[in-house]
Amino acid sequence: MRYLLLSGGQVVNSGGTVRADVLVRDGKVEAIGDLAGLPITDVRREDCTGRFLLPGGVDVHTHIDSPMMGTTTADDFASGTRAAACGGTTTVVDFAMQPPGEKLVSSLQAHRARAEERAVVDYGFHMCVTDLYDGATDEFPEIVESGVTSFKVFMAYRGTLMLHDGDLFEVLRRSSALGGQVCVHAENGDVIDRLAAELVAAGRTGPASHELARPPSTEVEAVQRAIRISRMADAPLYFVHLSTEGAVAAVAEARAREWAVAGETCTHYLTLDRSLYDAPGFEPAKVVLTPPLRTREHRDALWRGLRAGTLGVVSSDHCPFCLTEKQRLGEHDFRAIPNGGPGVEHRMIVMYAEGVRAGRISLEKLVELTATTPARQFGLFPAKGAIVAGADADIVVLDPDGATTISAATQQQRMDYTPYEGWTLPGALEAVYSRGELIARNGEYVGADGRGRFLRRATL
Amino acid sequence: MRYLLLSGGQVVNSGGTVRADVLVRDGKVEAIGDLAGLPITDVRREDCTGRFLLPGGVDVHTHIDSPMMGTTTADDFASGTRAAACGGTTTVVDFAMQPPGEKLVSSLQAHRARAEERAVVDYGFHMCVTDLYDGATDEFPEIVESGVTSFKVFMAYRGTLMLHDGDLFEVLRRSSALGGQVCVHAENGDVIDRLAAELVAAGRTGPASHELARPPSTEVEAVQRAIRISRMADAPLYFVHLSTEGAVAAVAEARAREWAVAGETCTHYLTLDRSLYDAPGFEPAKVVLTPPLRTREHRDALWRGLRAGTLGVVSSDHCPFCLTEKQRLGEHDFRAIPNGGPGVEHRMIVMYAEGVRAGRISLEKLVELTATTPARQFGLFPAKGAIVAGADADIVVLDPDGATTISAATQQQRMDYTPYEGWTLPGALEAVYSRGELIARNGEYVGADGRGRFLRRATL
Amino acid sequence: MRYLLLSGGQVVNSGGTVRADVLVRDGKVEAIGDLAGLPITDVRREDCTGRFLLPGGVDVHTHIDSPMMGTTTADDFASGTRAAACGGTTTVVDFAMQPPGEKLVSSLQAHRARAEERAVVDYGFHMCVTDLYDGATDEFPEIVESGVTSFKVFMAYRGTLMLHDGDLFEVLRRSSALGGQVCVHAENGDVIDRLAAELVAAGRTGPASHELARPPSTEVEAVQRAIRISRMADAPLYFVHLSTEGAVAAVAEARAREWAVAGETCTHYLTLDRSLYDAPGFEPAKVVLTPPLRTREHRDALWRGLRAGTLGVVSSDHCPFCLTEKQRLGEHDFRAIPNGGPGVEHRMIVMYAEGVRAGRISLEKLVELTATTPARQFGLFPAKGAIVAGADADIVVLDPDGATTISAATQQQRMDYTPYEGWTLPGALEAVYSRGELIARNGEYVGADGRGRFLRRATL
Amino acid sequence: MRYLLLSGGQVVNSGGTVRADVLVRDGKVEAIGDLAGLPITDVRREDCTGRFLLPGGVDVHTHIDSPMMGTTTADDFASGTRAAACGGTTTVVDFAMQPPGEKLVSSLQAHRARAEERAVVDYGFHMCVTDLYDGATDEFPEIVESGVTSFKVFMAYRGTLMLHDGDLFEVLRRSSALGGQVCVHAENGDVIDRLAAELVAAGRTGPASHELARPPSTEVEAVQRAIRISRMADAPLYFVHLSTEGAVAAVAEARAREWAVAGETCTHYLTLDRSLYDAPGFEPAKVVLTPPLRTREHRDALWRGLRAGTLGVVSSDHCPFCLTEKQRLGEHDFRAIPNGGPGVEHRMIVMYAEGVRAGRISLEKLVELTATTPARQFGLFPAKGAIVAGADADIVVLDPDGATTISAATQQQRMDYTPYEGWTLPGALEAVYSRGELIARNGEYVGADGRGRFLRRATL
Repeated sequence: MRYLLLSGGQVVNSGGTVRADVLVRDGKVEAIGDLAGLPITDVRREDCTGRFLLPGGVDVHTHIDSPMMGTTTADDFASGTRAAACGGTTTVVDFAMQPPGEKLVSSLQAHRARAEERAVVDYGFHMCVTDLYDGATDEFPEIVESGVTSFKVFMAYRGTLMLHDGDLFEVLRRSSALGGQVCVHAENGDVIDRLAAELVAAGRTGPASHELARPPSTEVEAVQRAIRISRMADAPLYFVHLSTEGAVAAVAEARAREWAVAGETCTHYLTLDRSLYDAPGFEPAKVVLTPPLRTREHRDALWRGLRAGTLGVVSSDHCPFCLTEKQRLGEHDFRAIPNGGPGVEHRMIVMYAEGVRAGRISLEKLVELTATTPARQFGLFPAKGAIVAGADADIVVLDPDGATTISAATQQQRMDYTPYEGWTLPGALEAVYSRGELIARNGEYVGADGRGRFLRRATL
Repeated sequence: MRYLLLSGGQVVNSGGTVRADVLVRDGKVEAIGDLAGLPITDVRREDCTGRFLLPGGVDVHTHIDSPMMGTTTADDFASGTRAAACGGTTTVVDFAMQPPGEKLVSSLQAHRARAEERAVVDYGFHMCVTDLYDGATDEFPEIVESGVTSFKVFMAYRGTLMLHDGDLFEVLRRSSALGGQVCVHAENGDVIDRLAAELVAAGRTGPASHELARPPSTEVEAVQRAIRISRMADAPLYFVHLSTEGAVAAVAEARAREWAVAGETCTHYLTLDRSLYDAPGFEPAKVVLTPPLRTREHRDALWRGLRAGTLGVVSSDHCPFCLTEKQRLGEHDFRAIPNGGPGVEHRMIVMYAEGVRAGRISLEKLVELTATTPARQFGLFPAKGAIVAGADADIVVLDPDGATTISAATQQQRMDYTPYEGWTLPGALEAVYSRGELIARNGEYVGADGRGRFLRRATL
Repeated sequence: MRYLLLSGGQVVNSGGTVRADVLVRDGKVEAIGDLAGLPITDVRREDCTGRFLLPGGVDVHTHIDSPMMGTTTADDFASGTRAAACGGTTTVVDFAMQPPGEKLVSSLQAHRARAEERAVVDYGFHMCVTDLYDGATDEFPEIVESGVTSFKVFMAYRGTLMLHDGDLFEVLRRSSALGGQVCVHAENGDVIDRLAAELVAAGRTGPASHELARPPSTEVEAVQRAIRISRMADAPLYFVHLSTEGAVAAVAEARAREWAVAGETCTHYLTLDRSLYDAPGFEPAKVVLTPPLRTREHRDALWRGLRAGTLGVVSSDHCPFCLTEKQRLGEHDFRAIPNGGPGVEHRMIVMYAEGVRAGRISLEKLVELTATTPARQFGLFPAKGAIVAGADADIVVLDPDGATTISAATQQQRMDYTPYEGWTLPGALEAVYSRGELIARNGEYVGADGRGRFLRRATL
Repeated sequence: MRYLLLSGGQVVNSGGTVRADVLVRDGKVEAIGDLAGLPITDVRREDCTGRFLLPGGVDVHTHIDSPMMGTTTADDFASGTRAAACGGTTTVVDFAMQPPGEKLVSSLQAHRARAEERAVVDYGFHMCVTDLYDGATDEFPEIVESGVTSFKVFMAYRGTLMLHDGDLFEVLRRSSALGGQVCVHAENGDVIDRLAAELVAAGRTGPASHELARPPSTEVEAVQRAIRISRMADAPLYFVHLSTEGAVAAVAEARAREWAVAGETCTHYLTLDRSLYDAPGFEPAKVVLTPPLRTREHRDALWRGLRAGTLGVVSSDHCPFCLTEKQRLGEHDFRAIPNGGPGVEHRMIVMYAEGVRAGRISLEKLVELTATTPARQFGLFPAKGAIVAGADADIVVLDPDGATTISAATQQQRMDYTPYEGWTLPGALEAVYSRGELIARNGEYVGADGRGRFLRRATL
């Protein structure tokens, strides 16, 4: 068929919702409106009455097939992007790590090779810089020109990932000169290491200590510092996975001054809380994420930050490690538990349920946070992030009257647990289209293998 | 013709811009997209290649045919709305005054009667409350049910328009209970009266004293006070015509707390400045507006406030008095000069030139400020304020390569001056459609008489 | 005897405490130090070993023999200043009211006449301005020259005491030009009147409604407004009886900008709380004070404000009305209950117990708040407010090992109740000296009648 | 003679000024007051009529005989403390450095040995920690018990002096547990190193580059970071040599929350400015201080911070290197110029002239900043810092009608320049007493050699 016509649904964009038909051709949105009466032929019609049509999710924070803390994340690009697809996410921007002793461009190429032929949704990369060797910044132009227009720097994990402030400053300057931006993991790693060592010295080696070693202040301090360093460098800054009220306040203050500072938070900081660290035994390891889960006061502040526009993006920070693997590595010392958890599959439905249905945000705001702003922020808009004429036909059909139950037993993520185990949520992702192709239906992947395309992203 | 097809233009909404055709039927937008190839018949086609299609302007602050300070504004609804139409504004929300000794409902009816059969664009009203007589609030339900869902209160002009804080509190409470909102003119009138009296006593009776009697603090104080009173009343608040950096800061702080506070500024505060009060003779009377024009520091802060989303609306505060009339009344005492100036006709093109073309805001932001947010704020969205399927086909065709020269000699406003006299601006409003009808072309009105409709606005 | 020697005590000044003897001659401090070994003759020696010697208290907020709300305060200058003396306060600055229809200078003279021959401690006055009649400000110079260098304005009580903002502005300007300052009662009276009327309309006429009609915001708003108006007038401002966290914040912000803003709070806001309004029957009338008592959060914020130096003065706001009188006037409508309570007698000992002994402030800070800063603020330092060479020998001998029990049955205040009934506090005011004369011993007045002197206070 | 009587002067303490005689015996203040008439015998009388008597200066930031940046500061304890004495400073608290590879206690002992028998005024030490080797904190108790109750940490100078954040945190925790406090040099050294390297790479190797490599933000960031780390450690913090408006703001915010944060600035930041870097040739090296001199906006903010009480101490940061030595080491690379300049000799008179006589602060405030608060902050009050009964008789006799001319040619500091060269200032330090002994007269040292005593300072 030449045309696909999604008819009768409510088309939701960040700017508003209208009842309209969506006509698709050649993978793109051809027209939106009252099209049922037009004499269009050669068309497959899908009745979307009573459904919402959302732009396909854009998840800008995933760690797929990635070396981390002595192991590798549990999903490869095949499994990871299938999970994304089934969860309504049609674009991922993944982190390309720089392994110890490796150079940047070759690291990027190696990571990109892992995605090719495997990914089933469209994908891009951020370039992680973990060692600013002599000549490292000379490779920046090649990286940016290849469509990888953002860099990632860690302010924690001394000895493996962390750059000191001088190197952060340098990355900001060089990246900015090329139109790139820098994503920062903001935690004061040195103080954390001291706190962690004290906990271990005191015999508190279990997974619950992870939270105690990373109090909110360790994030807030690093956020304030990074903001100030970005001002010295006159460079744009993007904070990944913010988790605290103080971080939101710092970002808000920066933005009020029209500084180029943006912030993201993640599904789990918005919907889970620190009480999970009170679970018995090794259970808390499931939420050994970085930063850790916080109290409900912080959670509420994050929601306020989203509504106020201080934070613009909700990502998954999909960084999956099986519980068995976490235990194997970190049973006797929480510092060795790989930090991270799954999330790309359930970001959209959890945010819909806990955000929209729980009355915290509007449906339009959901679209803004999970698709429109991430796409804008990282140079993918308007091809991605909106259902408008000319855009890629990445569309999620949401049935508000459906229901979704989350379970490790049924998930696509290659994981032995999910922190949302047993949650039954209002709403169901009935169908997911990527460039006009139906790739998932009711949580099952129905598309072709390896169909995803590398996305060259624009500079700022 | 059954259809109108505006083809080939760039359709601008607050959420983004796409190259698309717009199909109109029965006064509404039927479809948007690549429609040229579809076999549509019975259609009038307008080639919009190289043009921007913007949602028709929504101006929520006009004083048409209105008694003020011992005279009446110079435009009636025929001339005033023709000026609006020629200037790309297809919706106005005008202030219905409560004259001394008059009751609310009857005042509203009288003002509405002035608009009927005369207005050529769609219109709604705010209800001004200048005397909270016993039983006044009992009339609020009837007013709100009639579609007039906002009230206006003055914190200045003791003896004529001003309500004291207790009455402001009462209006907020009663209005809020009905889903209405309150627009506030925020100036500390009592301090202003003291300052003005001192100036007159010192022989400084000329029009330039107007500025000196109303320093920025008189606005900022009243803004802070009104915010606090609105919190005591738990009621939403909308500030008209903000002009100062301090006011922007106060509104920003309130919004950061998720208080229901919104703010507007006006074209002239964004594009003119206080140096006009240095003109010789009676010239400064042209900009005897309230609040007065400010320094460039304030102007810049207002632009920042718009970009940050603190201020959401740019209105004209069209309140026209001819210079001859200003002189007749206030030649010997600036306090008697009627406060106000023209603006509805030039708001869109001045904002385009000084905002978009001068690099201060994007075209999407222009749409947001002049159409989308005013429509949302005052219960008119999505019928007004966006070019989306199902909306009223109120569309402005803007030629970015055209030019516009402003002059009292050629304007539609029934005025003997304009503060923008002789300005030549990039961009031209080539065509203006209201509900699918072409009503203005190149600054000339080409529509029918009295074709405007009263708009029943939604509550919050 | 020519000399008095208070030997062996700890001399406490705001800047520090030293063990030292104090030599007094002719009513003044002659020397401080290790004087026991010096060959001084003609001396009366008082052993103060184990005692603290504090500067006599300076209470700058009393309403003695004063017409208020249809009655007169219960203490005349004889009883009121005896209570002061017994409570360790050797200086009062009282409010001279302007009765309805009266002029300022004659009102002041009438009030001063009430004090002469009756007061037993030294006294000064603030001039209350409740009606800014034509020519009122022309009397300001005479008032200031007479040593009454501060004015008082009310922002509440429309119809009796309240001035509108324009008049407040005028008083600030005129007073400031003479080196005077303005004390402000900061509450938004108009909103309060609306709230009070609603409570009465709802049948809530009992004394507990007093609190509900005066929520914290009504104070905070007025404080912010007065600060801003004082800036427009470029005049110093002193807030009486602040009671809320928001007021402290507003004053702190002003002071951080080096604006001439000072603030006082009162003993009862620091030591009592709103739970007293939950008492049964007419009991709450005992604490129908204005502003009302607040929650403990506000109380704690006031202590923080004192420690930070934001608030510099603790006064009593001694405004005594017997409970029988409160009931006579306000039994059926809380609005008619005279606002106020006793306090001058117990300010020092309650602040010592609840401040110093409870660990909230140091002894030096107590001196600063109750003597040094009030004396500085109102032009009485260094004659009053410190034990230094050359100062008036106003000295309180405090026995930290003693105890004080407060009871209406034994108090000097001419009142039928005290809000501190039954409190037993650590510490006892063993002796009180005024200009070197012993005037009170263990809570009993032992001085001469009418010995107090009028204090001509300095301008700023 | 048994007694010394300084008669007829104005005795200035931070709390006020009185005309009084001061009686001294056994090195201590025996009495203050009108003592002339008392029958005291065996007394030496000094007429101080028309003079101010100030508490001897307490300078808590000196680097005497100290290894720094490849050389040693130019003054030993003999010359440095003579300069102090002649300049009205009777107490210094000097920094004991930990040289590379050395342990703490032995470093302290070595430094203390340099002072003994040489210093002519009383002295104490801060312990600098530049390498937190294993077991370093185990030496803290011995250090504190010896009366060295404060530690110093550098956040700049990676590779020589700098500790990373984790070590700063550790020092704070351990020190605080002992009642000690931590002095912090707050600059982001890593960013500075990057900036400095860029300047050198660009050929900008001259001394003026020093300023460019250390922009205000590098201080402000470090101040904010240290405050946050001190909160995590729940430990008191003292900032040395603050130079920027942003630092003052950060400290003010911390103190408003009642956090244990204190701040000092130095004479040169208050009286010089960055224009000195515009001098030709190697001249700017004279003011290669760290942090560098700033613009006048910063200078004014520092004065405001002093007046507001945000900053409590003015020290000299006496760290003298001759210009010849600066040139020898750093002629070809500004990074090698030893950072520092002289100051202990002129702190008091410059602050008197530029502070008191220029109308920026009162004489009482001068005393507070240069003597009272430093003594309180570092456990020396009331023996030092005030002229009160029982205190050490450290007294400066200031003649307000005298004049002082500053010149390298006549100074006591063992330096070949002074940044105040040729300044002629109102006021002269006529006499300086230390423990009742006259040690300087009109800028010449007249006391004994090596008479200074080590001061065991109290913990917090």
